[in-house]
Amino acid sequence: SAMVRTNLMARNTDMRWRLPLVCLVWEIAMIILFGIFVRFNPESDAAGWEKEKHLKNITSDAENDFYFRYPSFQDVHVMIFVGFGFLMTFLQRYGFGAVGFNFLLAAFGIQWALLMQGWFHTLENGKILIGVQSLIGADFCVASVCIAFGAVLGKVSPVQLLIMTLFQVTLFSVNEYILLDLLHVKDAGGSMTIHTFGAYFGLTVTAVLYRPHLDQTKDKQGSHYHSDLFSMIGTLFLWMYWPSFNSAISDHGDAQHRAAINTYCSLASCVLTTVAFSSLLQKKGKLNMVHIQNATLAGGVAVGTAAEMMLTPYASLIIGFICGIVSTVGFVYFTPFLESKLRIQDTCGIHNLHGMPGLIGSIVGAVTAAAATEGVYGKEGLIRAFDFTEEFAGRTPSVQGGYQAAGMAVSLGMGLAGGAVVGGILKLPFFGDPIDENCFEDNVYWEVPGDEESSLYCMHDSNAKPVTDHQSA
Amino acid sequence: SAMVRTNLMARNTDMRWRLPLVCLVWEIAMIILFGIFVRFNPESDAAGWEKEKHLKNITSDAENDFYFRYPSFQDVHVMIFVGFGFLMTFLQRYGFGAVGFNFLLAAFGIQWALLMQGWFHTLENGKILIGVQSLIGADFCVASVCIAFGAVLGKVSPVQLLIMTLFQVTLFSVNEYILLDLLHVKDAGGSMTIHTFGAYFGLTVTAVLYRPHLDQTKDKQGSHYHSDLFSMIGTLFLWMYWPSFNSAISDHGDAQHRAAINTYCSLASCVLTTVAFSSLLQKKGKLNMVHIQNATLAGGVAVGTAAEMMLTPYASLIIGFICGIVSTVGFVYFTPFLESKLRIQDTCGIHNLHGMPGLIGSIVGAVTAAAATEGVYGKEGLIRAFDFTEEFAGRTPSVQGGYQAAGMAVSLGMGLAGGAVVGGILKLPFFGDPIDENCFEDNVYWEVPGDEESSLYCMHDSNAKPVTDHQSA
Amino acid sequence: SAMVRTNLMARNTDMRWRLPLVCLVWEIAMIILFGIFVRFNPESDAAGWEKEKHLKNITSDAENDFYFRYPSFQDVHVMIFVGFGFLMTFLQRYGFGAVGFNFLLAAFGIQWALLMQGWFHTLENGKILIGVQSLIGADFCVASVCIAFGAVLGKVSPVQLLIMTLFQVTLFSVNEYILLDLLHVKDAGGSMTIHTFGAYFGLTVTAVLYRPHLDQTKDKQGSHYHSDLFSMIGTLFLWMYWPSFNSAISDHGDAQHRAAINTYCSLASCVLTTVAFSSLLQKKGKLNMVHIQNATLAGGVAVGTAAEMMLTPYASLIIGFICGIVSTVGFVYFTPFLESKLRIQDTCGIHNLHGMPGLIGSIVGAVTAAAATEGVYGKEGLIRAFDFTEEFAGRTPSVQGGYQAAGMAVSLGMGLAGGAVVGGILKLPFFGDPIDENCFEDNVYWEVPGDEESSLYCMHDSNAKPVTDHQSA
Repeated sequence: SAMVRTNLMARNTDMRWRLPLVCLVWEIAMIILFGIFVRFNPESDAAGWEKEKHLKNITSDAENDFYFRYPSFQDVHVMIFVGFGFLMTFLQRYGFGAVGFNFLLAAFGIQWALLMQGWFHTLENGKILIGVQSLIGADFCVASVCIAFGAVLGKVSPVQLLIMTLFQVTLFSVNEYILLDLLHVKDAGGSMTIHTFGAYFGLTVTAVLYRPHLDQTKDKQGSHYHSDLFSMIGTLFLWMYWPSFNSAISDHGDAQHRAAINTYCSLASCVLTTVAFSSLLQKKGKLNMVHIQNATLAGGVAVGTAAEMMLTPYASLIIGFICGIVSTVGFVYFTPFLESKLRIQDTCGIHNLHGMPGLIGSIVGAVTAAAATEGVYGKEGLIRAFDFTEEFAGRTPSVQGGYQAAGMAVSLGMGLAGGAVVGGILKLPFFGDPIDENCFEDNVYWEVPGDEESSLYCMHDSNAKPVTDHQSA
Repeated sequence: SAMVRTNLMARNTDMRWRLPLVCLVWEIAMIILFGIFVRFNPESDAAGWEKEKHLKNITSDAENDFYFRYPSFQDVHVMIFVGFGFLMTFLQRYGFGAVGFNFLLAAFGIQWALLMQGWFHTLENGKILIGVQSLIGADFCVASVCIAFGAVLGKVSPVQLLIMTLFQVTLFSVNEYILLDLLHVKDAGGSMTIHTFGAYFGLTVTAVLYRPHLDQTKDKQGSHYHSDLFSMIGTLFLWMYWPSFNSAISDHGDAQHRAAINTYCSLASCVLTTVAFSSLLQKKGKLNMVHIQNATLAGGVAVGTAAEMMLTPYASLIIGFICGIVSTVGFVYFTPFLESKLRIQDTCGIHNLHGMPGLIGSIVGAVTAAAATEGVYGKEGLIRAFDFTEEFAGRTPSVQGGYQAAGMAVSLGMGLAGGAVVGGILKLPFFGDPIDENCFEDNVYWEVPGDEESSLYCMHDSNAKPVTDHQSA
Repeated sequence: SAMVRTNLMARNTDMRWRLPLVCLVWEIAMIILFGIFVRFNPESDAAGWEKEKHLKNITSDAENDFYFRYPSFQDVHVMIFVGFGFLMTFLQRYGFGAVGFNFLLAAFGIQWALLMQGWFHTLENGKILIGVQSLIGADFCVASVCIAFGAVLGKVSPVQLLIMTLFQVTLFSVNEYILLDLLHVKDAGGSMTIHTFGAYFGLTVTAVLYRPHLDQTKDKQGSHYHSDLFSMIGTLFLWMYWPSFNSAISDHGDAQHRAAINTYCSLASCVLTTVAFSSLLQKKGKLNMVHIQNATLAGGVAVGTAAEMMLTPYASLIIGFICGIVSTVGFVYFTPFLESKLRIQDTCGIHNLHGMPGLIGSIVGAVTAAAATEGVYGKEGLIRAFDFTEEFAGRTPSVQGGYQAAGMAVSLGMGLAGGAVVGGILKLPFFGDPIDENCFEDNVYWEVPGDEESSLYCMHDSNAKPVTDHQSA
């Protein structure tokens, strides 16, 4: 008990000063930086849009980028906050943390992402000009943090999450700049920049934060009948809106149209193979909710790069087919292996949902790009699809394929290296993470209703109670 | 007990080989057929859209059909997966089956529907050309399967559901072809093709699959406080997005605009009469959640055909008014009558939500079409509204009304006949449906959390436990 | 017990005749009034849109207002029905009432609002002409009723709610007419017309309906682990779609675009300060779900007036920053003060979420309007942004600022006076409101599953049971 007490003293989970301090100081920093840098772009500026219309001879407000992208933006927004938030509520005693911390980190992350991505992409005369596409970009960037959150879910403090967000958004933006601007690769749905980077970043962080005694919370790592249904809300909104995710920042017209169709096809196919392998690999052929909640989404991840290209619907079906299998098999065999052999404790199984499908999607993107021809895209269409203009005017599809592959390698490396460094930072002892026995337990950071009046409470067995200071003293 | 054991042997619910086999073989078939037949249409094709813009002198990408229909498509998509899925979670022990099997059948159904509807409607030079309207069409087609699923909810195996989906999508497409192409009727929101056909198909299937001892599961046919709230998520997303459903494939401009307004009005009115009759018909005037969850939606069903026509907002209110009453009265008096006298065990009461309102909607459509005049629609408007062009150039509104009525009769007949045949197929003994005692129980096909550790579980009375092989042996 | 019985006799909560009567008679009145007054506007009318296109030389259906506003309308629609409905499900025993009564009052309210707002704004030759903007307007109007519902949640009967809706929609429309037409103020997101008016109306109503013995239901005023998660569904959909709310009826083009961006920024900032102060003000720094569910939304309320103006993203961050603090502090200190000292029992804390942020938003709007310059808006842009045309052509920004402030005062006064009168009407003894002991209890107006078979039920301690006629007799 003396040892436990030491442990508790070393890890004081009281957030009272640390969390408010981080939130307030960082938000003030955001305000100052926005004040210096952020302005409306010509399409969202009163004087700017008028000037734009005159200059470009635009006769209809329907030409404003807002109307091409806003519906997709809102779908993406739902994916970030409801999709990822509720997907992670499957843990029986960590629903508040799943939805609430996801809310917190995403709300901070989108602000920092507007700045970081702005500095790299839309800086003009010292000002970051923002519009609807910037909002989508910020949401995309934060998606990679939500993914990484899935690996450390239940094991970190909100302060750690905010620190992870700060660094991950920064690295995301650097990586994105290298890929999109330097390597000039296409990655509209983010197989590389979002999924590969986000997943391997999160996996390395959780590896660095390895907790040897986590098996003591085995009970709480399971789900509850209703928590699984809450989780399905997240799954379905992610699944349904994924066509919007992959088409949100594609070129107007056929590219957005095609990206939505390809994603729709891949996701549909993925559901069938997920169900097949979930049944095949369980005793008595019963389906496992974890697979349905996660592996059904792998098809969306894996067409993230290629969906806007001329991938064709049947190729999308094939990709979804493969990823449903890979992802489900991953949950059954690979996640336990990662935990026991590589000491990677991946709470939500992001390696199966984002890691492997992200790599597959990167390769599919490289191959699809390399296989592009003028016959399929049209002469102008090929140039438009891959932006073979200015300094990249001479690039051929097969060279583009090579750069796409390089982009995957960079994203993977950046995720692994970044995660190692950030994981090291998060290991510092003053961020208030819980002791192993208190992981996956909302009571540590949240006022949980009924914890005093247990009769109002559903799961009132003694095991479910967290080890509190009081009890261990 | 010997008899029970025979029963169990005859109905082995282990899905281990059957479900994976069906999923994988069918998905491979989809891939092959998509490979042979499915291509992008000119608006989603890189070379195609460029050519289209040149040919039709289109100067703005905003003219791409994608921007007219994609927001509505996404709303429809939410209705199919979250709407129908969660609506059916009201059963206390069948939430996984409701959401999960709906997910499975819809994911398969949309692929098969893309093919079936493509062969009938968008085949060009041996290729099916798809775009956003094809995705909406596929979702619509699957809606009719989700409706039929409501009748058999809790009583069938996932293999049976997939087989039902295969046949129902096929018959739906044939019926739709007869109505839209041969009879040349209008049915943008599907009162006939989706609701009437889907409901009577499902009712016939459940009649053929009659289970005499289903009253033994009376406990499980009830809801739980929280399962009723999950169900309201489904109800509300269906209710809110129904204006998108009824306007999704209407003509650009005034028709889409009007269809949304009419549906909005009808649904609002329907809520009031549902509440009125729910209170009126219950003891002590208490409201019944079943009515609120279902009958409030009948107003959307009943303007499915006429919403895009010049129905007027007050006529929409009247239709909603009537359908709220018809549907609620149906739940109180008609569903028990169907079960006891006609041996139709309609789990979700689809006869009240889709059957009767579908018929009402078909009649309203016929009358509204017959009453159309040039004064109301304008000369060109009338031709455009009913496509009185080419071989149908000479058709008058009153003749159109007659054809609309014929369309209703065909849909009803197709539903009844098709349901009888498919019900017969589903009766074959090797599809793994549960014995009567195990109906409405997730444990049969799903790993349910806490079934081993009952202390974690909310509803741990012994009645709620399913009869398992182990227990009955 | 004799006294209790008298109380029960005086407050018969049986809705059997009263609720159906109100629903049916009022809905019939709606049908008659719609029949006399409501018609399609030129953009939703078959002949009208054709004429409009000829007259205004419109070549594309994309110019139909439907495509500029329908996606935002659907987002607003979700906010009203799922957003407000689920936000209020946090009470452990009032989930049906929260979602169900919100559904009922909103479905009635939107019809009455279409008429009231139509008479004031779109009456032409004795007909109200409606289009997608009318639907948004009706939803907006009902939002103010949903807000007021938050103050009286759990303490009133559905008949009282319908009566409150009837009067509040009427007063809303009058107030809106005074502000938008007579004072000619801008309030696209409704800081004044929706939030200030709605909140102070609701607070006055609940003050008039003061219940001295409400502390007897203290148990039921708390939340349950899962009810808090249901509530987060409401919170997140409100939070995510608020940019659509504040931009839905702004001018096409830059104004809609900018309104969405400003709201996005304000909301993001608000989350950070809410979390900071929630942690700061709780013992042991634990976060309180009530704050996360509510105060995070205050940033959207507070840019309701100014979001479409040239507010700039950093100013939006500042407003969100302040409102997160004000709102959270309000929940901790001000709500208990209001209850104990001013006898205002504000169930959902609408004063913190809509009252104070509404006032702040009104002031921000006035200041932003007063500070407008031609340099920032452009010459035409300034005229367009504030409609300085016709009789208001001579108005300057600073004068506009003064009128905006006057608009706030009128909204506040209208809310207070209207609430006092309507509260008085609701005090009449024959509307069937529950006795104090039965407040916050679904069982009074709903058939609650498992109330007879308590073993199926989660919260089966005796405290949770309502006092019924049977028990007290």
